[in-house]
Formats: sequence, C-alpha cells, structure tokens
Amino acid sequence: MTPHPLPRDPLDLVLAWAEAGHAAALATVVATWGSSPRPPGSMMAIDATGRIEGSVSGGCVEASVVDAAETVMQGGAPEVLSYGVTSEQAWAVGLACGGELDILVESVGPEGTLDPALLRHAMALRRERRPALLATRLTDMRHILVERTAGGSMAAHGGADLPDHMLPALDMAFRGGRSMRHEAPDGEAWFLHLLTPPHRLLIVGAVHIAQVLAPMAAATGFAVTVIDPRTQLATPERFPGIPLVTEWPDEALAALNVDDHTAIVTLTHDAKLDDPTLRAALDSPAFYIGALGSRKTQTSRLGRLREAGYDDGRAARIHGPVGLAIGAIGAPEIALSILAEIVAVRRDAPLGRRPGWT
Amino acid sequence: MTPHPLPRDPLDLVLAWAEAGHAAALATVVATWGSSPRPPGSMMAIDATGRIEGSVSGGCVEASVVDAAETVMQGGAPEVLSYGVTSEQAWAVGLACGGELDILVESVGPEGTLDPALLRHAMALRRERRPALLATRLTDMRHILVERTAGGSMAAHGGADLPDHMLPALDMAFRGGRSMRHEAPDGEAWFLHLLTPPHRLLIVGAVHIAQVLAPMAAATGFAVTVIDPRTQLATPERFPGIPLVTEWPDEALAALNVDDHTAIVTLTHDAKLDDPTLRAALDSPAFYIGALGSRKTQTSRLGRLREAGYDDGRAARIHGPVGLAIGAIGAPEIALSILAEIVAVRRDAPLGRRPGWT
Repeated sequence: MTPHPLPRDPLDLVLAWAEAGHAAALATVVATWGSSPRPPGSMMAIDATGRIEGSVSGGCVEASVVDAAETVMQGGAPEVLSYGVTSEQAWAVGLACGGELDILVESVGPEGTLDPALLRHAMALRRERRPALLATRLTDMRHILVERTAGGSMAAHGGADLPDHMLPALDMAFRGGRSMRHEAPDGEAWFLHLLTPPHRLLIVGAVHIAQVLAPMAAATGFAVTVIDPRTQLATPERFPGIPLVTEWPDEALAALNVDDHTAIVTLTHDAKLDDPTLRAALDSPAFYIGALGSRKTQTSRLGRLREAGYDDGRAARIHGPVGLAIGAIGAPEIALSILAEIVAVRRDAPLGRRPGWT
Repeated sequence: MTPHPLPRDPLDLVLAWAEAGHAAALATVVATWGSSPRPPGSMMAIDATGRIEGSVSGGCVEASVVDAAETVMQGGAPEVLSYGVTSEQAWAVGLACGGELDILVESVGPEGTLDPALLRHAMALRRERRPALLATRLTDMRHILVERTAGGSMAAHGGADLPDHMLPALDMAFRGGRSMRHEAPDGEAWFLHLLTPPHRLLIVGAVHIAQVLAPMAAATGFAVTVIDPRTQLATPERFPGIPLVTEWPDEALAALNVDDHTAIVTLTHDAKLDDPTLRAALDSPAFYIGALGSRKTQTSRLGRLREAGYDDGRAARIHGPVGLAIGAIGAPEIALSILAEIVAVRRDAPLGRRPGWT
C-alpha cells in the first residue's frame, strides 16, 4: 500500500531537535481577536540556529517571535506575547494582519517548560490517531496531557490531576475539533491545544468528482487517500500528489484503521464497490459517511444493506444524497458540496446535522 | 488593467472554423441520466481534420461522436445520439462513465443546421455578458436565440416566434443557471442551451483567505479576479494564474462592468477598502455580495452605509457574516464556506436564500 506521508510538523521537529540535544523553542497561538490570519493552536518551531518551521501569523509577527524564542532558549522565562496590529500598521508593512493575537513562547528540553518526555508521549498518541490535547496553564506553563478515551471520558497522563472545571471545555474542544482558551473559576487562563492528527478523507472511486474533491480537501487540511481497485482510474497522473490505494475498498478500509477523525465518501456508482465500502464504513467509527447517488439509488442501497443485517437506524449514518444542498451542477460543484458537508459535520455545525436535501 | 482571458470555447472555435470556410460540427450534451460525467450543455467542437476542443463525456464516447460528426460534416442529417454505458462496460474500458446521455451532433455552416450568423449573434451577446440561450427543437434542429432583457422578459432574435409554453422553462433555465430539456405540450422535445459566459467572482482583498478562495473558485468554473490596491499583497507570486487589479475597488468595479452573473466578496477587514466596495456592489446588479467580518463589524458597516444613503433594505443584499454556516475555522474552511454560499445563491438553492448564521 502507498505510504501516507504527513507534512513536517512543528511538534515533531521541535521534539527531534530537543532529543538531539539542541536548544529548541515552540511558539503557539493561544488567542486571537479580529482578523488574525492563523487560528489558535497554530505553531512554529524554532531552533538556536534560527531554523523555523510552521507559522503563527503568516509573516506578520514571526521575526519578533523568533527574537523571543532566542531569549527563552538562552534560559529566559517562557512568556505570552501580545500583538495588536492595526490595519494602518498592517497596510504600512504590506501585510493583511489586522487583529490581535497572543503567542506562547517556551523552551523545549530538560531545562525548558515543555518536557520532551511529555511531548514524546503526546506524539505517540497522535501517531496512533488517539484524540489528545495538551492543556497549558498560561501563568506558570504547567502542562497536562489529556486523552479522550473511546468511551468519551477524559484521562490525564502521567498521574496528573484533571481539574473538574476543565471537563466541559475539554469536551467542547474535542467535539468541535478546535484548540481553545479556558478560563478557570479562579480566573487563571488555560490553553487547550488539540494535538489530533489531520482529519482524513478516504475517497472510494477514482472518478472525475474525486479528481476535484481530492486536491480541494487537501487544500482544506485533510489527509486524503483515494481508493479504487480499477488501476486504469487510480493513477498518479489523474491524482498528482494524492496517496492511492488499489485494493478492494473493504480491505483498504480495514488496513487504514478508520477512526472517528476519518471521513469516508463513496463515488463509484457501482454496487460492487460501493456496498462493501458502506458496510465497512458502518462498522467503523468514521465521523462522516457519504454516498453519491440519487434518492432512488439510495433506496436500493438501503434495501441491500438491510439484507446484509444493517437496519435503517444504523444506515441513517450515511449522508445521501451526498453533500450540502447548494444546487450543485457538475463535478466541481458536487465536490464542493461534499467537502462543505464534511466540514460542517466535523465542526458540529447545524448544517451538518440536517439531512442534505430539505 | 490586467486582461481577463477566458479558456478557448468550443462555440468560439466552431464559429471561427465555419467562418474560415472549413467544415465544422458541434456536439452538445442534451440530456443525461445516472452518473454521466458532463452535464447538459457540455460541448465539443469538431472539424473535418479531426481537430476537437471540449468534451461531452470525459473520454467515454468522444470517439463515436467524432465519427458521427464526420458524417454530418459530409452532408448527413443532424442526429441525437443516445449512449447507455453500463458500469460493467465502463469497468471494462477503465472509464468511470456509467449512466446514459443524449448528444446532439449537427453541422455548422451555410449547409448545416446551425447558421453561423445566428451563432455570431449569440457570441456577441455573450461577449457583452448579456444573458442568452439557444433553444433547439430536437426533431428538426430549429434554433431560436433568446435573450433575457434587463427587465426579465424574453426576446427572440431575428424575428422568431417564442412559443408561450417555453416561457416558464426559459425562466427556470436562466434563474437556475442551467441548460435543460423542455417538453412542449405537443410532445416535442427542445433543448434550452444557456450561452452565458462563466460566472465571475471579484475578490476584494488579496489576503490569505483570497489565496485559497481564488484557485478554489477557478476550479469550480468561476472567472476570478482579485482586486487590491496594496501592491505588496496583490502579487502574481501570491496569486499564480489569477488576474489581479491594483486600482481602488470602486474604480476597479466600475471598469469591470459588474453584471448579474458577477459575485463580489470583500475580505479586507479595512473600512477604507470595504466600504467603497460595498457601495459600488450595492449600486450594481451583482447576484451575490458578501463581506467578511463579525456581526459587530457588520453592524458598524450598516451604520456607515445608512449614512451614505443605503438603507437597511438595500444593504440586506450583503451576505454577512459571510459564507454558509459550516463552522469554518481557518482560511481554507472560510474560503470553502464562502464559495459554497456563492454556488447556492447562483443555483437558487434554499441554502442560498437563508441568512448564513441561523
């Protein structure tokens, strides 16, 4: 099977640098107001030679953040930097970065506030695609690594106490898929930093719509894989840069360890491929299952699923006809409607909870 | 100002070939069922040397269509070809083209059924971005060129009669932006072929969201222009392949002749740029006006527009907060939500008629 490379991640890098004995610092956006270009949780890794990876503002304040990182790498205290960029200033420097943002800068290493052992543990959880979050108290940079178990409860790693006041906020962060600030009853501010890997989109059917959907979803931050045993269709020429799997969909899905950060959409119009895909998807915790096809196709699919032991209650997880009801015509608009629906479901937005065609 | 090139169009080409005295034929998808890869109205131009431009099925039936085109170019009668491709056949040839489609193939020229003079007239309307449609009776290939006037009424060119039964279907085709089949009360089938140019998206603000929105909209078939007087932002490096205009937005919009096939979205977060954009947009017949910004920003904008003489009724045309409510986080998802909303409005889908954040 084709490997599924992820882009180099600031967290992976900063850990690798620290483990190699280099001074390393991590900058993390912990709050934004107005039109800040990068959302909370955006990160930049910095080492003592000035190497950087990632971005906290798309170029607006990076130079100043690197200065601060050098200070913490030389033993300075970690700090939360606040930037307020008026649109006049932004105009003057030619950057579109009105708004305000707070950036936490801390050192990673035995002397730093971010312990490589904790980070290593966090990265292991992420590699296994287990939902994890790093909670940081912004007054003293105390870190708690939190895992959400399959049952939905929260577990703190390393024997740390998990304050009760944090539980609803943790649930909101995991459910909404967003890093966020949390104010404790004692007034102390925490930053809840989601460490989950990129959400995945598994597209079954290397068809025309997939040729538009795959790059569009990749541009939106999904790790995309296209699955189709028809090797004439699933070619690198038709899907440049997209990982391809040419096994049968049920085998492919089993090998890919579908989790609740995975969306599956089937576009083949062929029951020989769609049906095993849908059965495997319904057996999985995928957060989204979509199937291209008319209401008539959907009805006959439901019949076949029923015969295979999947009652209508279970099959109701399938979004079909697929995509938000934007009146899509043609492959690009259909791809757009599917991706918009997947994001709405991922973000727990009301549009994702409605059937598509009302 | 940067010119706005359109891709070579089969209609332009077939007319150029005919005017140069060459035999030329036009193939048009006039009906589809199931999973046909190209929608009705998709075209392919064919000349006697076998040159082709455009596509009617993404490669499934083109070879057979070219054969038929050669026959009509040699004086054969125009015909409507019907293709039914089972998914087994599609599988066998390695093409994803289950479904059925009907394709009209006719000759363009003095001897053909499609008169170059009529086509020239149609192209002139399209160049002026006036809404035009070619109605074709599929029994005898009689053509009527229809223009929708600014007032919304239908005018047939060249003194042709416009049958009353066609008016509701014409209205539906123009409003929905889709070519469609129309069944007359006498049972005769017509094909209503929209000839409008690509819808345009004018993005004001060469910011990060625009860098995602512009290529995404171009991939969805929009002719995109990015407008920003800040020449540090509006650069070809940041917007490869996208036409850029660095005049002030109100001047740029005036020069671009905004019509009712144009969407305008402002992303600058800067009243100096957003306000003149919104005033010019409200003075225009743009089918979509969107403005990035929070409810608070929106409220203060409405106040300034009111002072400038645009009451809340007129300002209600502005979609803001912009985009479908898919819970978008970060620039790519915001771009996706905006584009999905623009398509929903363009396609007259219910989602486009609701305010975004209910």
